[in-house]
Amino acid sequence: MGFGRRLAERVDEHGPLCVGIDPHPELLAAWGLGDDPSGVERFARAVVDALAGHVAVVKPQSAFFERHGSPGVAALERVLADARAAGILVLLDVKRGDIGSTMTGYARAYLGEGSPLAADAITLSPYLGFGSLTPAIELASATGRGVFVLARTSNPEGARVQLAERDGGTVAQSIVDAASAHNAAPSEPRPTGLGDVGVVIGATREHGLELGRLNGPVLAPGLGAQGARPADVAGRFAGLRGLLLPTVSRSVLAQGPSAEGLRGAAKHWREELGAGQPGAPFRAQHRDGCAERPPGPRSARSQAADLD
Amino acid sequence: MGFGRRLAERVDEHGPLCVGIDPHPELLAAWGLGDDPSGVERFARAVVDALAGHVAVVKPQSAFFERHGSPGVAALERVLADARAAGILVLLDVKRGDIGSTMTGYARAYLGEGSPLAADAITLSPYLGFGSLTPAIELASATGRGVFVLARTSNPEGARVQLAERDGGTVAQSIVDAASAHNAAPSEPRPTGLGDVGVVIGATREHGLELGRLNGPVLAPGLGAQGARPADVAGRFAGLRGLLLPTVSRSVLAQGPSAEGLRGAAKHWREELGAGQPGAPFRAQHRDGCAERPPGPRSARSQAADLD
Repeated sequence: MGFGRRLAERVDEHGPLCVGIDPHPELLAAWGLGDDPSGVERFARAVVDALAGHVAVVKPQSAFFERHGSPGVAALERVLADARAAGILVLLDVKRGDIGSTMTGYARAYLGEGSPLAADAITLSPYLGFGSLTPAIELASATGRGVFVLARTSNPEGARVQLAERDGGTVAQSIVDAASAHNAAPSEPRPTGLGDVGVVIGATREHGLELGRLNGPVLAPGLGAQGARPADVAGRFAGLRGLLLPTVSRSVLAQGPSAEGLRGAAKHWREELGAGQPGAPFRAQHRDGCAERPPGPRSARSQAADLD
Repeated sequence: MGFGRRLAERVDEHGPLCVGIDPHPELLAAWGLGDDPSGVERFARAVVDALAGHVAVVKPQSAFFERHGSPGVAALERVLADARAAGILVLLDVKRGDIGSTMTGYARAYLGEGSPLAADAITLSPYLGFGSLTPAIELASATGRGVFVLARTSNPEGARVQLAERDGGTVAQSIVDAASAHNAAPSEPRPTGLGDVGVVIGATREHGLELGRLNGPVLAPGLGAQGARPADVAGRFAGLRGLLLPTVSRSVLAQGPSAEGLRGAAKHWREELGAGQPGAPFRAQHRDGCAERPPGPRSARSQAADLD
């Protein structure tokens, strides 16, 4: 089964929340853990153990493991194995991007069958062009895994790149459109359903993107500590045909290290996301038609390029 | 001493060549090495041992180590330690890019004093905006290290992002301009001289960029197997105020594993680069005035945005 379908099933079961695993120095200290490989491993495994069976996806941030060199990366491998055994989906946030045999190398590392660093899905960064990511997208499809390509991030510095225009559209929209094209033309033997190529779009501001043809997942960071409220998020992604995964990190992680604290915070956010938003955009709207609706007309607003 | 000055000294001594260390499966097989952590380590250390004292810079590609999981990353750490001991500058090609505390995490991993993965310089990818890279640029300055930010790559898929326009200029030019601004306003206590913020510009085609104010290094991949000839490279970067580092990989690596073969190939390229090009652009043209010349007028060609 492809990643998109697996993800949609988990979201049907546990709701759409994705919880970030960001063992940065302040949180490690707050949890009484050392800022060392053992500390990041204990932190991450505690989150996995507390949330497996309670949320659809966790998202470890690779930088906080790489910070501790190869022992940190070895800790990440054990966290990934732990999550696989617990049956929770893992989106590993690595933001890799390169060309040719180098991109193939990254794909093998993070999406290859049998690799100790393989996750269910990874994030990718498209500065070298969406097409340069093809080796990762193809390997993900072949191994039942997924990718989330950066499109429009919420940090103010992102606009100079992501809202630049060429051929009549912004860079960010071109990333969404390229992901949509992949999801519309699935490689055999993946059947129709939610596609495997997701995008990352920050939830803290208007994104101005046309998402009515995506047919894939959208990772939307920004809920909670970064300021976005569930109602804002639902409104900003109302036009999405796909599946929205709002991400929280700090506001859940700050309730650890107790499993009850972590689960309670995750439950709070799941309920907040559910309240007043039955169905779209937090349920898969895809091409099998079970919850399908036609994409709306392209709004004037989404064509007004600069939303900063 | 800042990275820019250290680099300029090495280039004065050994010439401007940068040799990539890309232990991909085909090269490992050609060298009779296994496609495993031990194989990539032996490959990389052989290149370092052969070329230390003969070229200014080597550039290991992180993806080929990450492919082998944490044992591959541990091998990379030993390669970095080996290179430090041998006194050859290492530009680690990791193309990291993120925001906030995550970017700080990557900076600590690859540019932090005492980190086992720290190199003399790293590559960065600016899809989240040049400004998002500030934690890495600041830590590099503080520890005498450098960064090379992707600007214009030679792969055809790069154009959709890198040649998109905003505020009257391309994304690629905005990266060069932001690097120039950093190099023009060095933080204390770095004295004047070649700056620490470099850019990456492919050498295989016309780049269309105005480089007369960069005052920093340019990594220019594409020589040799990728098709660029030394005369092409010199011509394309004639307007550079800074220091050009042409990079070769395959055409040197294919002459291994013998140290004589590797050194012979590196010597060939050094001589090719030197022939007919005394001085600019393979010597530092920077603000102390020793080899300074005024930037030329902005050419019509560099303003004609689309050079594909």
